[in-house]
Amino acid sequence: MTGQRSDARRNYAHILTVAEAEVAAQGAQASLEQIARTAGVGSATVRRHFPTRKALLEAVFKQRVHDLCERAQTLRAAHDSHSALVEWLRELLAYSLAARGLADVLSYEPLQDEAPQDSCALAIGAAGALLLRRAVDDRSVRADITIDDLLTLIVGIALATESYADPATQADRAFRLAVAGLGPDGT
Amino acid sequence: MTGQRSDARRNYAHILTVAEAEVAAQGAQASLEQIARTAGVGSATVRRHFPTRKALLEAVFKQRVHDLCERAQTLRAAHDSHSALVEWLRELLAYSLAARGLADVLSYEPLQDEAPQDSCALAIGAAGALLLRRAVDDRSVRADITIDDLLTLIVGIALATESYADPATQADRAFRLAVAGLGPDGT
Repeated sequence: MTGQRSDARRNYAHILTVAEAEVAAQGAQASLEQIARTAGVGSATVRRHFPTRKALLEAVFKQRVHDLCERAQTLRAAHDSHSALVEWLRELLAYSLAARGLADVLSYEPLQDEAPQDSCALAIGAAGALLLRRAVDDRSVRADITIDDLLTLIVGIALATESYADPATQADRAFRLAVAGLGPDGT
Repeated sequence: MTGQRSDARRNYAHILTVAEAEVAAQGAQASLEQIARTAGVGSATVRRHFPTRKALLEAVFKQRVHDLCERAQTLRAAHDSHSALVEWLRELLAYSLAARGLADVLSYEPLQDEAPQDSCALAIGAAGALLLRRAVDDRSVRADITIDDLLTLIVGIALATESYADPATQADRAFRLAVAGLGPDGT
């Protein structure tokens, strides 16, 4: 039994390593069949470990999501709550641009019956909500803004610029516009 | 020759009708092979009329893009240039949510050597730029904002919400946030 379990763990780790490379190259649409072929296992084995494409992508991005959650904890100690929130959103955008497919995973609507640790979108949402709450408490951000509203903008900017030759420059312009709003000089 | 040409025109119109239905059902990832099968022609015939997926999608969305360009012309006569721009962006967002695949087409980076009539993104950009210019001239919008910045946000909001059960509600929240900016009450 123990041997079978450690075989399964090795199999899981091997498929995940192959999936990380394939998602980095192809994005969220990476072929599950290609991952199975490269890993030297059958499609059924991949599906047993990762029943859905979403499950596979969630596993691929687990470490990055963990890093972003830790970063939010660190930024909670910052003096300026508004700057801390904007800085964290900027880092989330940079991660989304650098890691092909992460924005797709975060664009899935969180399901209410999932625990935060089961979903990248919920974990990121919970981490960002702490920074947003502090900014709202300080009255530096309107109380009717939700973390989902902010994530929609960040994920959207990443998705809208991913086919650009230089995504980071256009994404940064759109991000600064969204933070400042569509108003006259001095706003 | 005339007979051959009118055959080709009928063929084009027929494939386009099939493509419109398929893109409405499947979005920008609609299968070109499926379109050929449903239209009862070979893949080579589809590719002769539409050399790339982008060319096919541009043809599918031509009428909607034309409507949005006309709408921008009408809104140029509005009294309040800021409201006219915001209203047009809101309509572009509604079109993008209603027409699956339009946001994908608009997310292609415009090529500098294309004429506006050759590209949905360029045509929409040119139409929106007229409204933006007026708002900037009136000093109701900052002069450093470009129409590409605005289109990135609109297209991004549409892409980020398309898997939601109720895209319009979340898209509207994100849109209002981007117009108002991430600030305190009264901004």
